[in-house]
Amino acid sequence: MYQSVRLLGLDPGLQHTGWGMVESAGSRLRHLGDGVISTDASQPLADRLCTLHRGILLLLEQWQPDEAAVEHTYVNKNPQAALKLGQARGVVLLTPALGGIPVAEYQAMEVKRAVVGTGHADKTQVEAMVKRLLPGAVMRRSDAADALAIAICHAHHRGTRLALARGYVPA
Amino acid sequence: MYQSVRLLGLDPGLQHTGWGMVESAGSRLRHLGDGVISTDASQPLADRLCTLHRGILLLLEQWQPDEAAVEHTYVNKNPQAALKLGQARGVVLLTPALGGIPVAEYQAMEVKRAVVGTGHADKTQVEAMVKRLLPGAVMRRSDAADALAIAICHAHHRGTRLALARGYVPA
Repeated sequence: MYQSVRLLGLDPGLQHTGWGMVESAGSRLRHLGDGVISTDASQPLADRLCTLHRGILLLLEQWQPDEAAVEHTYVNKNPQAALKLGQARGVVLLTPALGGIPVAEYQAMEVKRAVVGTGHADKTQVEAMVKRLLPGAVMRRSDAADALAIAICHAHHRGTRLALARGYVPA
Repeated sequence: MYQSVRLLGLDPGLQHTGWGMVESAGSRLRHLGDGVISTDASQPLADRLCTLHRGILLLLEQWQPDEAAVEHTYVNKNPQAALKLGQARGVVLLTPALGGIPVAEYQAMEVKRAVVGTGHADKTQVEAMVKRLLPGAVMRRSDAADALAIAICHAHHRGTRLALARGYVPA
């Protein structure tokens, strides 16, 4: 019998941060919850980041995940948009780490490959596969589907990825 | 007699975040401290953000500032660099705000105008004026000089800026 672990996938955004909680035991996956943390665009930036931080703290308290995973965002256009996304991403990486929860990062292509089987899948394909792999997932917003996809990817790769993040170099 | 307030200026960066602590009473300014919080580039990103967060928490504990100010970074080139800076900036804005400390933001031109008198001053001019305005400033790194410049700018504008951030619209 495999030990089960709870994995939190996070898809960062200043306006909406998607989250997805998954239980993994060996090759078995189970959907626990998903949703979106939204911030009020009329508030000062520092207050919006506090809302995001507190939203993630609530998830950690409620679900007690063992590990977290965040997509390694690739940005190729507007630097101002990249700065904005970065600010949310900083808080999303920081919050679980402060609670001693290991945080892994994955490239978008790795996430697609883990979920659909190819790194060039589109959003609709990813969403459809997440629904098949995790019956019961609600995913009212695509951010939540992305977050679940990241959690699934982490379930596949967690052994290797966290060892590498800790400085382990395979022979 | 004016009430004195302690102002923390922060110049965010993932590698080095500059900080400068200033006491302001009416038009009088006094240098309290300055320095740099550095993170280890060989560590995972989430751990580096924790180091930055804890460094700022220590400053808040040690100096008990009343308000904080951060430069509103303008980025115009490499989106990957903007994302990286954004991650540090998110943590720099979040940390004082979580402690209930109001955080103001200023454009680089406002900071230069407040310190040198013109928005088109260069780094050397800003540093020289910071030294004149704040005898005793150490500023081993330029990040610390920038942070003190932001604190000086905030000392000039704080009344208006924080009221605006709270949604106050002047008639």
